[in-house]
Amino acid sequence: MSDLSLSAIVAALGGQLHGNADLKIAGLAPLEAAGPSQIGFVSNPRYQQQLADTKAGCVIVGPGLAEAAKRRGNCIVADQPYLYFARLTQLWRSTLRAAHTPVGLSVPAVHPSAVVDPGAMVHPTARIGALCVIEHGAQIGAETQLKARVTVGEDCVIGARCLLHSGVVIGADGFGFAPDGERWEKIEQLGAVRIGDDVEIGANTCVDRGALQDTVIEDGVKLDNLIQVGHNVRIGRNTAIAGCAGIAGSATIGAQCTIGGGAVVLGHLQIADGVHISAATVVSKSIKTPGHYTGFFPLDDNASWERNAATLKQLHTLRERIKKLESEPKP
Amino acid sequence: MSDLSLSAIVAALGGQLHGNADLKIAGLAPLEAAGPSQIGFVSNPRYQQQLADTKAGCVIVGPGLAEAAKRRGNCIVADQPYLYFARLTQLWRSTLRAAHTPVGLSVPAVHPSAVVDPGAMVHPTARIGALCVIEHGAQIGAETQLKARVTVGEDCVIGARCLLHSGVVIGADGFGFAPDGERWEKIEQLGAVRIGDDVEIGANTCVDRGALQDTVIEDGVKLDNLIQVGHNVRIGRNTAIAGCAGIAGSATIGAQCTIGGGAVVLGHLQIADGVHISAATVVSKSIKTPGHYTGFFPLDDNASWERNAATLKQLHTLRERIKKLESEPKP
Amino acid sequence: MSDLSLSAIVAALGGQLHGNADLKIAGLAPLEAAGPSQIGFVSNPRYQQQLADTKAGCVIVGPGLAEAAKRRGNCIVADQPYLYFARLTQLWRSTLRAAHTPVGLSVPAVHPSAVVDPGAMVHPTARIGALCVIEHGAQIGAETQLKARVTVGEDCVIGARCLLHSGVVIGADGFGFAPDGERWEKIEQLGAVRIGDDVEIGANTCVDRGALQDTVIEDGVKLDNLIQVGHNVRIGRNTAIAGCAGIAGSATIGAQCTIGGGAVVLGHLQIADGVHISAATVVSKSIKTPGHYTGFFPLDDNASWERNAATLKQLHTLRERIKKLESEPKP
Repeated sequence: MSDLSLSAIVAALGGQLHGNADLKIAGLAPLEAAGPSQIGFVSNPRYQQQLADTKAGCVIVGPGLAEAAKRRGNCIVADQPYLYFARLTQLWRSTLRAAHTPVGLSVPAVHPSAVVDPGAMVHPTARIGALCVIEHGAQIGAETQLKARVTVGEDCVIGARCLLHSGVVIGADGFGFAPDGERWEKIEQLGAVRIGDDVEIGANTCVDRGALQDTVIEDGVKLDNLIQVGHNVRIGRNTAIAGCAGIAGSATIGAQCTIGGGAVVLGHLQIADGVHISAATVVSKSIKTPGHYTGFFPLDDNASWERNAATLKQLHTLRERIKKLESEPKP
Repeated sequence: MSDLSLSAIVAALGGQLHGNADLKIAGLAPLEAAGPSQIGFVSNPRYQQQLADTKAGCVIVGPGLAEAAKRRGNCIVADQPYLYFARLTQLWRSTLRAAHTPVGLSVPAVHPSAVVDPGAMVHPTARIGALCVIEHGAQIGAETQLKARVTVGEDCVIGARCLLHSGVVIGADGFGFAPDGERWEKIEQLGAVRIGDDVEIGANTCVDRGALQDTVIEDGVKLDNLIQVGHNVRIGRNTAIAGCAGIAGSATIGAQCTIGGGAVVLGHLQIADGVHISAATVVSKSIKTPGHYTGFFPLDDNASWERNAATLKQLHTLRERIKKLESEPKP
Repeated sequence: MSDLSLSAIVAALGGQLHGNADLKIAGLAPLEAAGPSQIGFVSNPRYQQQLADTKAGCVIVGPGLAEAAKRRGNCIVADQPYLYFARLTQLWRSTLRAAHTPVGLSVPAVHPSAVVDPGAMVHPTARIGALCVIEHGAQIGAETQLKARVTVGEDCVIGARCLLHSGVVIGADGFGFAPDGERWEKIEQLGAVRIGDDVEIGANTCVDRGALQDTVIEDGVKLDNLIQVGHNVRIGRNTAIAGCAGIAGSATIGAQCTIGGGAVVLGHLQIADGVHISAATVVSKSIKTPGHYTGFFPLDDNASWERNAATLKQLHTLRERIKKLESEPKP
């Protein structure tokens, strides 16, 4: 019922089809798991052996693997097979959706259980999931989708074609307090959050409102789950951040960056465009040069780690001892 | 009103009772805080002194401490006192519940504020808390309980006797994008999440749906709060993971593992059965041998840390200098 | 419409005003961005140059910068300019709120979409946001505000003047299981959570209920977003913890501490009053002396990190080699 023929796939997405255009494809699968009614892809020429071994009904390959793929059987040759595959997942999703939804029945734009303040502006083409909360002055752009249980706070603005997953909180107060003797005096967070177009935000991720000005997420940014974005942060275009990362207040992250899971960016730092931070790495000073940066303790068996960690606390002393050895008179 | 006599406890849970069977127990308490109407336990013979000092009305001990416990006063001797204690907490909870609930009034299986899609299947013995969202095609197994504000996404399957705490999100999209020049093209996540029986998932933890196949959590797995489980991950039977850990996409974790709080497992790795990862450790390569693995930077006073961290960035050079010293002619 | 004259500000908050008392202030801004209708502040004498350069209509300064500020133009001199600024943000917020809210229309104390158990006690001056869940036996103190989508579990107590942000979960079960062969037996969590007065808790943060006794958050504590607080933890007065931190079960943290973002405190540890933990630091043993403690791997370019991380795994051996060199006979 939701099968697609290879010819229908190529008609929708382009690419050169070799083999049986009438073959019905029932699903997508990883190459090693795919069966004769499934389609897979290879983007990396290193996986030529997997290509030879797969039982997939069709494979998507780049020009470099075209001959090998044709020898094997049905294939679609595309300039960027991974990108082609991404678009195929989208085609699949929309085909499945159409098959699921009874004719004439459309999903309501705003789920009746959502709590949308009359002073919020939701674009007529946006979709607001069950049990969302949209506060006064918030704006939700065209074709943006909020899944279930998303909060968008007062005056926060979400652009067009965004996707916010369940549990996301946009516009909670930034973490700001002034010391008053032993206690803390709250700094009211008077800014909001501005999110550009084509932004995706993962489940239970939080983006805090700015203290005085807005926290800004630029167009095309992708945030995974359980990420904390502090107040006054700016994240540049198309930057992607993996799960459990924390971006402390007033940090500015450039465009086209990637930040690995569990990484921490300290407050008030600046990271240039095109910087790639490994997972679990702490960025403790600004980074002005594009490149790949890392800093996490290497895993070891526990006994070895204990020995090395203990020695690490004397590392500075070891350096002094080496210096002393070097300065000693030679025979 | 919800007191239990020692004889009632032993009737329900077994064990050998020594002392006053009619003593009414009003609650459970840690040994050092317990009073004469409370019951505590000692599982480790090292705590013999605490046993001597406690004012508890009764103590649960193993055979090795039986004589010392009898000399002290009322006690229950059980083969596994910690396990006995766990079961006693369960007995207590059910007794308290019964005392709370007016006769003839049962908690509704599905809270009226929950949003359950007509195309979802909820077992009649399952309990769905307030303001949960269960999407189309999802299945909730027998005696499984969802606390308040849980999301179970489309087509995700939860087994029997599971407990999902407030804020859990099952089945948000995995984090998958193909680069398209400077921008990212979304890879629709066409898999779902399959969770076995007897799984507990802590507050605000997220388990993403798979890209093509399902993310799988096997029977008996225990996940603490605020954990991220990426797409296509598989977590083996009875593995327990502490809070704030992150398991990146396509990682496979074996059975009977423990993973400490804040640990990060990178993507596509494989971890064997019986592996124990310390808190805050980054697993950056597959682990094929059971054992205990660690990797975090040891805490120090800030000034010492600064000195050692600075030297650490020259560590490779220090090694070269040692080599050179070693190669120098000896007198 | 929501402008405030400088004289009105000083009338409300004190301080010495120099310059045009009638100047209307339209907003607060960082010094470098402020325009002639905005007010900024300088707390640190180091920023004297910014003071000279700013276009702000008025600046708040301490006594040490009073003369420089007067030469520049309008200023308010306050003993603690940062604290003054915090209070000004509060004045602003309340003025804005008054301007927003139509006369005679008050916000309902409990949003109609919230699910409040009849056996919970909510103070008449508390405010409960949309889609919150307050379970049986829970208590919410005077003037406490729960933003949207907060869960307060059974028997948990929140003090007065607290602020809980969206997605917070108070009183999920602590993570407690006794091993029973290969499987885990649940330890029912029979304690609750007690939160003092003037506590703020950030979005999606979780505080688990105690196993036997209560998890306790003392007065004046400030918790940022996405923090995990395990069962039986106690956090002392006025301690502030930044986002993504994890406090494992039964840890006791003193008063007046600060804990940086992403830090992890292991279970059963004790941290004295006045301890400051840097971001991303793992506290793996108790800390008895106030001070500043740190422990994270320093960031480096990836190639250097790889070299140093590899050498780090031989660090203990390097130490032995240095020892050997030192013991060799000298010429």
